[in-house]
Amino acid sequence: MATSVTPVRGMRDFLPAEKERREQAIAIIRSSFASFGYQEIETPALEDVARLTSGLGGENEKMIFAVLRRGLDPAAPLLPRNAVDLGLRFDLTLPLARFVATNAGVLGDVSRVMQIAPVWRAERPQKGRFRQFMQCDIDIIGEPSTLGESELIVATSAALRALGIKDAYVRLNDREILYGLLEACGLDQPLFDRTLIVVDKLDKIGVDGVATELTTKLGVSDQSATALRRLLEQFADRDQTDTDGILALLPATVPTAARERMIAIRDAVTTGDERIQLRLDVSLVRGMGYYTGPIFEIGHPASSSSVAGGGRYDRMIGRFLRRDIPACGFSIGFERILDLLDLPEDAQAGVALLYDDTCPTGRLLQAQVALVEAGYKVRLVRAAKRRATQLGRLYEDGIRFIVRAADIQDVTRLPLSPLTPPRPGIE
Amino acid sequence: MATSVTPVRGMRDFLPAEKERREQAIAIIRSSFASFGYQEIETPALEDVARLTSGLGGENEKMIFAVLRRGLDPAAPLLPRNAVDLGLRFDLTLPLARFVATNAGVLGDVSRVMQIAPVWRAERPQKGRFRQFMQCDIDIIGEPSTLGESELIVATSAALRALGIKDAYVRLNDREILYGLLEACGLDQPLFDRTLIVVDKLDKIGVDGVATELTTKLGVSDQSATALRRLLEQFADRDQTDTDGILALLPATVPTAARERMIAIRDAVTTGDERIQLRLDVSLVRGMGYYTGPIFEIGHPASSSSVAGGGRYDRMIGRFLRRDIPACGFSIGFERILDLLDLPEDAQAGVALLYDDTCPTGRLLQAQVALVEAGYKVRLVRAAKRRATQLGRLYEDGIRFIVRAADIQDVTRLPLSPLTPPRPGIE
Repeated sequence: MATSVTPVRGMRDFLPAEKERREQAIAIIRSSFASFGYQEIETPALEDVARLTSGLGGENEKMIFAVLRRGLDPAAPLLPRNAVDLGLRFDLTLPLARFVATNAGVLGDVSRVMQIAPVWRAERPQKGRFRQFMQCDIDIIGEPSTLGESELIVATSAALRALGIKDAYVRLNDREILYGLLEACGLDQPLFDRTLIVVDKLDKIGVDGVATELTTKLGVSDQSATALRRLLEQFADRDQTDTDGILALLPATVPTAARERMIAIRDAVTTGDERIQLRLDVSLVRGMGYYTGPIFEIGHPASSSSVAGGGRYDRMIGRFLRRDIPACGFSIGFERILDLLDLPEDAQAGVALLYDDTCPTGRLLQAQVALVEAGYKVRLVRAAKRRATQLGRLYEDGIRFIVRAADIQDVTRLPLSPLTPPRPGIE
Repeated sequence: MATSVTPVRGMRDFLPAEKERREQAIAIIRSSFASFGYQEIETPALEDVARLTSGLGGENEKMIFAVLRRGLDPAAPLLPRNAVDLGLRFDLTLPLARFVATNAGVLGDVSRVMQIAPVWRAERPQKGRFRQFMQCDIDIIGEPSTLGESELIVATSAALRALGIKDAYVRLNDREILYGLLEACGLDQPLFDRTLIVVDKLDKIGVDGVATELTTKLGVSDQSATALRRLLEQFADRDQTDTDGILALLPATVPTAARERMIAIRDAVTTGDERIQLRLDVSLVRGMGYYTGPIFEIGHPASSSSVAGGGRYDRMIGRFLRRDIPACGFSIGFERILDLLDLPEDAQAGVALLYDDTCPTGRLLQAQVALVEAGYKVRLVRAAKRRATQLGRLYEDGIRFIVRAADIQDVTRLPLSPLTPPRPGIE
């Protein structure tokens, strides 16, 4: 055995306090999404590796944990690509598209679907990045209009509010606005997607960095790079809540349909829930290449990266089903919101049932069952010699009442003593 | 793309109704275990493959989904065993032992731990066997006495009761009773574990089958096989609730300590909760080789296999930590209990907000938010032409109220109409 025993690189054990917090947050998200009519589904953690690497996952396809075929000849060497047949999913959207294709016969015309589940990516481990992490997604399948995006934004905003996260704001854009901007700068369509990957780094490398990288790495002309730099600078100075003002500034290469989508979503969302703050940010890219229309994120002043992200992907399900079905989705970055939570305390009071070797085990368990049925959370605890230290730890661990098993005369009348916070400096 | 789009072989998609039932059951189990003082933890789905194949997992080690190393040279052929470094866990006990070794410094002397999570086994797909399935485990780490086993049995029985599962009974045995029986039949210790694998098939192949397999496959003498057959027949006829009677029949080769453990657990469990039915079944084996003392299962008249199983494994954590820590655990076979559940209906009423193209989206979303805040589960539904069919489906799907968006005058006073069960034979 190894001398140091650690979890797999980039993955985490969760101790009880952290796990409880995570489950509490998941329960709130699940209940909030259910209230907005989303029905939860589940897909297996593994998918065929050929499906995972079909070009829809962008950079994530390079980070797949691939699974060795079963039943291989242990003595026959083979190439890595021939050794694998399955892979752990890197997101919940691609498995959902496969799910919709598999179950198309039993799903209705429009489905509102929720998924809360782990995904795996073999990323270089770094602060805040993990190789197994949770995603909480809602998706609307079969709705072609901006009602879909609007519903997703209202429901996700409500879920974050239910988690006690205040001051969140929505950033909205559209893939066709981005394409229109690139076209106005004289860029060629074959370069659009690679250009957007560079524009996506705007927050990190700034306008100058973007312009430099476009000319040096992609061979974009100085003229086009300068034009794009001017456009980005112009929009960076604008008040992003002034949707109409920003739309008026967009070049004629941006299609009317994209402008109308932005107005429709803004009107629906802000009428639907006036607490939602909406910003039109024409530099918002969103990494995934499969988006086809509106894209959106939720930002928060206390988080440097977005806390939720999504968009419309009308052409993904068709890859599996051979006929396109319009779809859009929104995903909460679960690991990113954990620091922002403001959760209520556990309402169920904790009781420690303190025992020593003189207590008959049967009597002890009888008392535990009676207290559980009275609504308490009951832990059996062997009484320690350093009693004050022990009680202090129990208090920190959420215990609010003590029952000494030695004092029990009658399990129908258990002597609960309140446990008070430990006084500092004792022992 | 493949013409038929299916989940990975042996794994399942869960549609909303089934997923809801599963999550409802999980929430009940989680809450019930928490009431009995178990604290939930989580470990990653992946562990080092060397740890998973260290000999503690028995047959399960042959069913590991192993993960290809990252960063391999795509052009260099290699042997399967050199291609992998990680594997998906096949149970929750081995990862727990690793977790205890990793986190020994921060865990208390005695930990009561709960895990509810999926595991993966590349089993031959067959009815009721899946390659990804859920386990719900509780374990007590650091408790050497039979208080541990007794607590586990009381808490697991309560969880099954909370799920509406009645008529469950506990089967109890001890590894040392099994060894004592084999010794009494003149078997040699090196053959014990392989013999028990055969005895474990008793339910399927009967006493004769066991005796035949022992002589033909393991080379056990006719005399020993006959002696074991007689013992098994003798105990098969006994009333298993008569613990004292059965213990009195055991040969002298069964150590006193094992007999005392059976009595201690019986007394503690039946005093602790008199609803628990306990049976002493000296032919109970439990598959896993890592058990060191008491072993137990929960059976149910409506289930051919056990619905929960566990035991004491005092020497497993030492494999990782280099010092033994006593431990015992009990695992609910989640997939097996799903058919036995009797769950309450969803208490939150479902509302369908019926709209058509004349309804402004913002107003629709405003009505949805208002209804959600009033405590309803609200789904937006485009009104269909075949209205009676649509309403019938909505009723089946849990919807109990309808609001027609076209009738909304004021979102603070929404016109809810109750939805009645569809009348058969209409349309």
